[in-house]
Amino acid sequence: MRQHRLSLCGEHFLEWFIARTERFIEKYGMFGPEDRVLVAVSGGKDSLALWDVLLRLGYDVRALYINLGINGQRYSGESKARVERFAVEREGADFQVVDVRQAYGKSVPELASEKWGRKVCSLCGLVKRHIMNRMACEGGFAAVATGHNLDDEAAVLFQNVIHWQTGYLARQAPVLPSTHPRLARKVKPFFRFYERDTAAYALLRGIDYIYDECPYAEGATTIFYKELLNQLEARSRGAKQQFYLSFLQARQEEGLFSRAMEELELGECVRCGQPTTAPGLCAFCRLWEMS
Amino acid sequence: MRQHRLSLCGEHFLEWFIARTERFIEKYGMFGPEDRVLVAVSGGKDSLALWDVLLRLGYDVRALYINLGINGQRYSGESKARVERFAVEREGADFQVVDVRQAYGKSVPELASEKWGRKVCSLCGLVKRHIMNRMACEGGFAAVATGHNLDDEAAVLFQNVIHWQTGYLARQAPVLPSTHPRLARKVKPFFRFYERDTAAYALLRGIDYIYDECPYAEGATTIFYKELLNQLEARSRGAKQQFYLSFLQARQEEGLFSRAMEELELGECVRCGQPTTAPGLCAFCRLWEMS
Repeated sequence: MRQHRLSLCGEHFLEWFIARTERFIEKYGMFGPEDRVLVAVSGGKDSLALWDVLLRLGYDVRALYINLGINGQRYSGESKARVERFAVEREGADFQVVDVRQAYGKSVPELASEKWGRKVCSLCGLVKRHIMNRMACEGGFAAVATGHNLDDEAAVLFQNVIHWQTGYLARQAPVLPSTHPRLARKVKPFFRFYERDTAAYALLRGIDYIYDECPYAEGATTIFYKELLNQLEARSRGAKQQFYLSFLQARQEEGLFSRAMEELELGECVRCGQPTTAPGLCAFCRLWEMS
Repeated sequence: MRQHRLSLCGEHFLEWFIARTERFIEKYGMFGPEDRVLVAVSGGKDSLALWDVLLRLGYDVRALYINLGINGQRYSGESKARVERFAVEREGADFQVVDVRQAYGKSVPELASEKWGRKVCSLCGLVKRHIMNRMACEGGFAAVATGHNLDDEAAVLFQNVIHWQTGYLARQAPVLPSTHPRLARKVKPFFRFYERDTAAYALLRGIDYIYDECPYAEGATTIFYKELLNQLEARSRGAKQQFYLSFLQARQEEGLFSRAMEELELGECVRCGQPTTAPGLCAFCRLWEMS
């Protein structure tokens, strides 16, 4: 926690981390004690730490694990085992599983192999967003929570700025409100934590998580942007946080990217009924249509 | 010229470079054949190349060299010698000199040594902008032209984005129109060229320029940002250009940062009469006031 100029022992770090998460949940109006929250877990440090913290804070939380079928079930299998072990060790840690292959007929890599020119990571993101939203809406959850940390958010911001993708810049946020009855609120309670903090929390708490990056993420652009931002942070402590927070502030105070926001009009997919900006089928349903 | 996928021999490169400069001057409405243009020269490759190209294109151009007194005249002396040699070798290459120490009593480093907590580079920029504007207005020039290339502009954009300095983001442009009778138009005819292209032009043309960076620039933030952008460019060819051009496009098409632009109200400095947003003395006059 060099950016906070704090030195804490393990026990106090855990307390500090939990209290800070609660403060951000409240400050940014993510959800309240009365809300049912669906936390998306991958088996990695961030999402398992989030699940742990939300349980300790007494929120009404249930986890969702999406089996993407990465590496012939090997990577996904190991991830799922971490989720199962986590749940066994904790009271009230309920979770549900959606297996993409069972539900839709193909794993994400199988789907990707049929889609020329589409990257696995981009397809995977689309599939996960669709399923998270569907499970949240069908289950009557008030919000979907994901474990994105500050390093994740800053890297995405960086990528969006390098390409001046104003539509994405308009919508990147720690809280995405529901703008349609079938669109769940999305929240990121860890968005103010550096990655090293969420890793420290998981380690100190003794959470057994999957260390390896997804094999498809190797050489991914996001990882490259993270490395550039790490160089920035190494030169100027707190730079990453300042980059992201001053973006949120400038957008809020000066209405930046508001025009790109206005352009979004939501219809409903004729097949699955989920909100979409596309006419006819949503991007998710088009995936399966064409293959 | 890897980003253009062109392979040119030396002679055709020089032709291509000159034609392209002319096209950008016209496309962005920088100035016309009837305008008197003041080109700010430092003795470096970019500004001497710009002076050379503008002379060859037949524009009504005069150069301004500002002697900042860097390194006890050693760095500045060598820079000035390059400017003098350039002028001797070319017909119609007229230039004038403003010596900061003679005109105001102190060199830039002497001034900086008295200003605790102010960086030499920031002071130097302020001094140069003031003098360029004064000489342009007093001399009745239609525009001040500087040799900034794409690498320079992208690095400044990057720095402004990292800090979300919306005021600067509103005003960073290849052409800054005059918004006050005593504020000269500022233009950057090389803003679409990569630094390697302006360097190639200077070398092929046999221009003797000062290779060394200013000694105060060592470790400068702008150089650090240039290095990060070079990593980006190495990974994705053309990324730097796309970053800058998509910024200009998004700002123009979506009115980005327009609110930050509106807030600027110009008054006049009570001492020098130059436009300023500050009440009373402008930032330049305050420099000498306090020392």
